[in-house]
Amino acid sequence: MPDILSPDCVGLVTPQTHHFSTPLALDCGRTLAEYDIVYETYGKLNENHSNAILICHALSGDHHAAGYYSMQDKKPGWWDTCIGPGKPIDTNRFFVVSLNNLGGCKGSTGPNSINPETNKPYGPDFPIITARDWVKSQARLGDVLGISQWAAVLGGSLGGMQALQWAIDYPKHLRHCIAIAAAPKLTAQNIAFNEVARQAIMNDPDFHAGHYYQYNVIPRQGLMLARMLGHITYLSDVAMRQKFGRELREGKIHFGFDVEFQVESYLRYQGRSFVDRFDANTYLLMTKALDYFDPAHECGDNLAAALTKVLAKFLIVSFTSDWRFSPARSREIVKALLDNKKEVSYAEIKAHEGHDAFLMPIPHYIRVFQAYMQQINIPGEK
Amino acid sequence: MPDILSPDCVGLVTPQTHHFSTPLALDCGRTLAEYDIVYETYGKLNENHSNAILICHALSGDHHAAGYYSMQDKKPGWWDTCIGPGKPIDTNRFFVVSLNNLGGCKGSTGPNSINPETNKPYGPDFPIITARDWVKSQARLGDVLGISQWAAVLGGSLGGMQALQWAIDYPKHLRHCIAIAAAPKLTAQNIAFNEVARQAIMNDPDFHAGHYYQYNVIPRQGLMLARMLGHITYLSDVAMRQKFGRELREGKIHFGFDVEFQVESYLRYQGRSFVDRFDANTYLLMTKALDYFDPAHECGDNLAAALTKVLAKFLIVSFTSDWRFSPARSREIVKALLDNKKEVSYAEIKAHEGHDAFLMPIPHYIRVFQAYMQQINIPGEK
Repeated sequence: MPDILSPDCVGLVTPQTHHFSTPLALDCGRTLAEYDIVYETYGKLNENHSNAILICHALSGDHHAAGYYSMQDKKPGWWDTCIGPGKPIDTNRFFVVSLNNLGGCKGSTGPNSINPETNKPYGPDFPIITARDWVKSQARLGDVLGISQWAAVLGGSLGGMQALQWAIDYPKHLRHCIAIAAAPKLTAQNIAFNEVARQAIMNDPDFHAGHYYQYNVIPRQGLMLARMLGHITYLSDVAMRQKFGRELREGKIHFGFDVEFQVESYLRYQGRSFVDRFDANTYLLMTKALDYFDPAHECGDNLAAALTKVLAKFLIVSFTSDWRFSPARSREIVKALLDNKKEVSYAEIKAHEGHDAFLMPIPHYIRVFQAYMQQINIPGEK
Repeated sequence: MPDILSPDCVGLVTPQTHHFSTPLALDCGRTLAEYDIVYETYGKLNENHSNAILICHALSGDHHAAGYYSMQDKKPGWWDTCIGPGKPIDTNRFFVVSLNNLGGCKGSTGPNSINPETNKPYGPDFPIITARDWVKSQARLGDVLGISQWAAVLGGSLGGMQALQWAIDYPKHLRHCIAIAAAPKLTAQNIAFNEVARQAIMNDPDFHAGHYYQYNVIPRQGLMLARMLGHITYLSDVAMRQKFGRELREGKIHFGFDVEFQVESYLRYQGRSFVDRFDANTYLLMTKALDYFDPAHECGDNLAAALTKVLAKFLIVSFTSDWRFSPARSREIVKALLDNKKEVSYAEIKAHEGHDAFLMPIPHYIRVFQAYMQQINIPGEK
């Protein structure tokens, strides 16, 4: 809860909703007849609409990327570290758009929205969404806002994957693509973790095959397990050791199955608090979008071939202790871009925070990010 | 199912059970008044009882380490690769003892055994068991078999931890200690994975606070999840990639939550088949024994101090792609032994199989293991 708003904060923000009534054809073969997209903007769109930045969110993210909704808020948006006056995504220069993706649970149409055909929540009938579908829906939001070319599209983790997809699908519609802690596709191990998370949710007796809304319950235990497991993959072994070591919560072993080690207490807390703010069907959809992301697949598993037509300049950032999407995964992207003689900057940041590093104020990371953003040319800028 | 028994196989074996009626005081403060230990032996005990080898099993292991129970068996014991005539643990030279640990579910007294005080299964009332308790119970089994000093005590993973505990608690009672793919204690990340597995089991509505036997159900989904998660940590990322890549089970994406990728199919199969052969309460106990293992703790977190009194010679083996108990964890043990000027051989085996490598016929591993075992002196050997 901020007592006063710091001068590098975007301040109090209000989300907006746009209703789209043009049907959206999806990768899965189905069509969404109409849908809402909720979004926030920070900064001002310049006269020739050349300073717009699109933020794509990760698995459990949403449109609230920066600022506060009220002075009573305990926390700012999820990427407040990087968005604001004088921050890497400098709202003195850029007009920033951050949306909740389709299939989400924070206001954009998703499984917990009312299906106009049935007047009941979509639940499991909500179509599977891919990164490509998201990019298409984001392009439509750009149209609504009068943005025909983004100065940059960017994101971390699954957000970085969307940025890559943008560069591939709409090469002329972005000048810069920034993918942080991302990967060109998931490994079998990544998919395996997602599958365990999904099984945890789908096996919860309160899941009711995804129709839990009508039973007035949520698959609490399953979603909690999924989040606990996710958290392990977001942190590095070293970060966990530094944060918790093998500290005992009450100073001594008590030989039982209650919480004993600090790390258990932390994970259970993370799991429990997530359940109250996230929808299980959305979690399932997001993990599937991750599993399916694989732009090289259509090009004979040749990532360079998938990137031949991109026009954007790239910044790729990875973190040394990220074992979910390790630096090697980012280097695959860099190599494929270089194979095409594309312009790419790459930074491998020494950090012990693991995958979550992309959300943290790590000085080297912030400096690199800021330097890259500062050199982005804004046509018409005074 | 063997058509004929290979000459390097120990052949058909029969487990034996010993009933102990001397109470066993446990680390947790409780006492087991009486208990059974089931075990198998391979090879022959020599005249002066100097050729005995004790095998300690890992989390989901048991006493059936080698050979077959019948010619109809589909698989031999879990470490048949390493135990038999001419194999590293050469039954032409050694008398091998392999037991099911206390708290197990394969014949030794554990949560699914009848508690003589209540005439019902122990269930959650079975006491928490530590590696030290196991070692104590194994020493008693040695007494029964007339073995006052083991030529070697050895094991992989949690089995290697028991071997270390033997060297610390009974220094005069073993000449060699062999710990493969082990660690001196769990990291916060290791504990975190165990905690998610436990939560999966304990949150299963069929768990009934551990009393599921009397409801004639088992916490099937929870135990399945725990095993799926375990499997991810047993395999390396590379091994998963080589085994499954991102292969689709039916050749194409079908946009749904059924099994799509081969790795999902594999994990679900592993989870399901485990449920039918393992007890959930035992799984909980085993993960706790892992969490608690930390011989340095009593010595101010100084592992070297914990190892000052060991007399055994050591072989420590690790595998490069093991990220559950990485080579760095084995090197901690090696360093602590060297700090004490103890005799230790260390082999870091290049292998892509991950933690599971210790069960596999990797040529370099087998050669190192065999060479070490061959130089073990057996007093009285002709």
